[in-house]
Amino acid sequence: MLTLMRSLFAALLLLPVLLLPARALDVKLTTFTLKNGMQVVVIPDHRAPVVTHMVWYRVGAADEPMGKTGAVHFLEHLLFKGTKKIRPGEFSKIVKRHGGNDNAFTSRDYTAYFQRIAKQHLPLVMELEADRIANLQLSDKDVKTELEVIKEERRQRTENDPRALFAERLNAALFVAHPYRRPVVGWMADVENLTLDDVMRFYRRYYTPANAIVVVAGDVTPEEVRKLAERYYAPLPNTAQRPLRWRTPEPPALAARRIEMRDARARQPMFQRLYVAPSYRTAKGLQAHALEVLAEALGGGATSVLYRRLVVEEKVAAFAGAYYSGNDRDYGTFGIYAVPAPGVKREKLEQRIDAVLREVMANGIDAKRLKRTKEALTASAIYALDSQFALARIFGAALASDSTIEGVLQWDERIAEVSNADIIAAARKVLKPAGSVSGWLLPAPPALARADAAAQGRQKQEKVAP
Amino acid sequence: MLTLMRSLFAALLLLPVLLLPARALDVKLTTFTLKNGMQVVVIPDHRAPVVTHMVWYRVGAADEPMGKTGAVHFLEHLLFKGTKKIRPGEFSKIVKRHGGNDNAFTSRDYTAYFQRIAKQHLPLVMELEADRIANLQLSDKDVKTELEVIKEERRQRTENDPRALFAERLNAALFVAHPYRRPVVGWMADVENLTLDDVMRFYRRYYTPANAIVVVAGDVTPEEVRKLAERYYAPLPNTAQRPLRWRTPEPPALAARRIEMRDARARQPMFQRLYVAPSYRTAKGLQAHALEVLAEALGGGATSVLYRRLVVEEKVAAFAGAYYSGNDRDYGTFGIYAVPAPGVKREKLEQRIDAVLREVMANGIDAKRLKRTKEALTASAIYALDSQFALARIFGAALASDSTIEGVLQWDERIAEVSNADIIAAARKVLKPAGSVSGWLLPAPPALARADAAAQGRQKQEKVAP
Repeated sequence: MLTLMRSLFAALLLLPVLLLPARALDVKLTTFTLKNGMQVVVIPDHRAPVVTHMVWYRVGAADEPMGKTGAVHFLEHLLFKGTKKIRPGEFSKIVKRHGGNDNAFTSRDYTAYFQRIAKQHLPLVMELEADRIANLQLSDKDVKTELEVIKEERRQRTENDPRALFAERLNAALFVAHPYRRPVVGWMADVENLTLDDVMRFYRRYYTPANAIVVVAGDVTPEEVRKLAERYYAPLPNTAQRPLRWRTPEPPALAARRIEMRDARARQPMFQRLYVAPSYRTAKGLQAHALEVLAEALGGGATSVLYRRLVVEEKVAAFAGAYYSGNDRDYGTFGIYAVPAPGVKREKLEQRIDAVLREVMANGIDAKRLKRTKEALTASAIYALDSQFALARIFGAALASDSTIEGVLQWDERIAEVSNADIIAAARKVLKPAGSVSGWLLPAPPALARADAAAQGRQKQEKVAP
Repeated sequence: MLTLMRSLFAALLLLPVLLLPARALDVKLTTFTLKNGMQVVVIPDHRAPVVTHMVWYRVGAADEPMGKTGAVHFLEHLLFKGTKKIRPGEFSKIVKRHGGNDNAFTSRDYTAYFQRIAKQHLPLVMELEADRIANLQLSDKDVKTELEVIKEERRQRTENDPRALFAERLNAALFVAHPYRRPVVGWMADVENLTLDDVMRFYRRYYTPANAIVVVAGDVTPEEVRKLAERYYAPLPNTAQRPLRWRTPEPPALAARRIEMRDARARQPMFQRLYVAPSYRTAKGLQAHALEVLAEALGGGATSVLYRRLVVEEKVAAFAGAYYSGNDRDYGTFGIYAVPAPGVKREKLEQRIDAVLREVMANGIDAKRLKRTKEALTASAIYALDSQFALARIFGAALASDSTIEGVLQWDERIAEVSNADIIAAARKVLKPAGSVSGWLLPAPPALARADAAAQGRQKQEKVAP
């Protein structure tokens, strides 16, 4: 992620910022709801004769019951098995045979399936998706086979990567009670225990038209899409009502947390601090937008405040940055990360980070940097939304997270409105020790092993103390 | 709890340890299962013409679904409302009119209801309990009224007590994924959101004969109890199968956790460290028994190793102790607590605690102390089990936590078998930083407020840094 953020920032510097239109996010879209409750969003994009077709379900990892973490992600994999009409694995093959590609993804708040394909095949992919909303057929063998796939996915992406493990534990310590504390892929022991019955119960409850959103972006008109949606999706009956989404909210922020993880595979010490923040959906006024601007100014790249202060000027860090992640339904996260310069003590690095944060809470960001940061953020959004896929995704994600289309469309205007006073207010509200976790990933063997070894060493020469 | 442990220990010193029978826990009991799956345990105790009657359900706070914390405890309260036969609040009044008393309690693993009453009224209380297993009738008004009661209970016991809040957050940081991390009373925001529908779903699923255990201790014979049980409990139909109990197990211990909580109401700094440990049910061999002996030797009172070393000899602590809690179904907890002596730095106190732990891991406990500790533990058990209520409770709790009667009956023999090698092995296995949380409760205003004030102070004299 660090690498990605840096290269994205570098790319942004090359953008012709001055040529931006006044309303950067002036996206034309149409939305309507079918009689079974399924919402449809159409985003015309006539640059090429292709479409991006997405089906979103309002169910993510944070909706899983206790003991069933990983079930939503597992179900996503299983949707590529068969239906009453189609054999296991056929779905993607059919899409491929027609020159398209397809995939799916699961987050804390949603599950989404998509195909990118020539426009004349939109009816085909709609027919395929309509089929698997209603007619999924799973055998015990399907479940057993795919369980090995997702276990391996977890091993590869998490267990084999100390930074991923560290991020997982840090996140689990950040949220005290809310299910965002659980990994989307699930805890391994839960995943191993998932059954056909578990996933089918989930499928029937959440994969129902009233809980789904279809997004079509591409070389189509709203009228064409409406006709097709009426034909393929409108006849689908609901198997359940649209479920309420109640997740345990965070209790009041009372105690600062810390974690310390030692892993011989880690190559250098790494510091991260996370704060529970409001999300765009839950924030009051411009709070989330202010956090977005603050994170970018504070730690969005090599010219940011944290980088300049800690890496360039004080030389206490080899690397430093910050980010705000505000698109989840219930909470956002404000993050700070740093790698200490060789020989710099951990306490020292944290003290210097805290000093910069105190300054921001006192004074905010200077006017020139504020203006530049807001322009860069808007440019970054334009750049990202130049892709048809990103365009479809941002609206699907917003709706599936119970946010609004208006929230997305007004984002750039809100960003432009952010003042230094907004930034100071948001920083003081969010950057509280009691709402944070600070963590160190250290490239040493576990403290335990050392303590054991030390204890065993002592055993020879010391007497029994008690 | 600290006070209680100390006075219990003091009381134990007065016990005539040498007069103990060879088999301390030689309890005579009978158990049988009714045809609907309800288990019955009879413990004759003819010292007085009274009985203790308990009904246990295998459902505790750790069985609650995501977002419904507090539901099991809430349901326990609601069982004192009416049934088809009895008006709200009548249950306890009837028991009282017959000279008895009654109450209930909820833990992580079970919910239990009990009455203590003259033996001739055993049929009455059985009839009453049989009625409320099957016929609970709740109105929205009952739920609304009782919700205020449990919210007030949480406010009084937790929100108003910084040590209780601290214990709650410490526990939430100890367990990474397992639901033992949640408070039994529930997170306030979940509790406020509980509905009649939530509790009735729970009631139907868990309050069913196959999921219940009846324990009768007192002036009765197994034959009498069997007849009554056949009459009152055997006819009850099951509304559900006995539910499986799957709770997310803890992922591997990878990262030491810390919390720091500041509360102006706290009167002195307090340190606690908790380790995830096996429970009696999950431990291998003598591991849990060894932890019990270790905790008692290390921190069971003013003559314990920790107290002697830290308080008496080194004078770094005003108070210090340790305990092992091993009766829960899935995990135990090994805890250490200390209050620093005035002027002693926090780091210093922790270093000295760690030094004692390292010695224990290296050398265990000396032979004389080991013998004395094991005798004291057994004496303590005898002392506790002299009460009819405690006797009924220990077997009910064991069975409702999916443990066995044999485990309880053999406890004293196992304790007697614990060797110093067992203690060293258990200590090395359990006392690992990566499986622990360390916490400080500090009597200062929140760090945040101070940081804010400091930042605002600086605002006047400092220039904008970025």
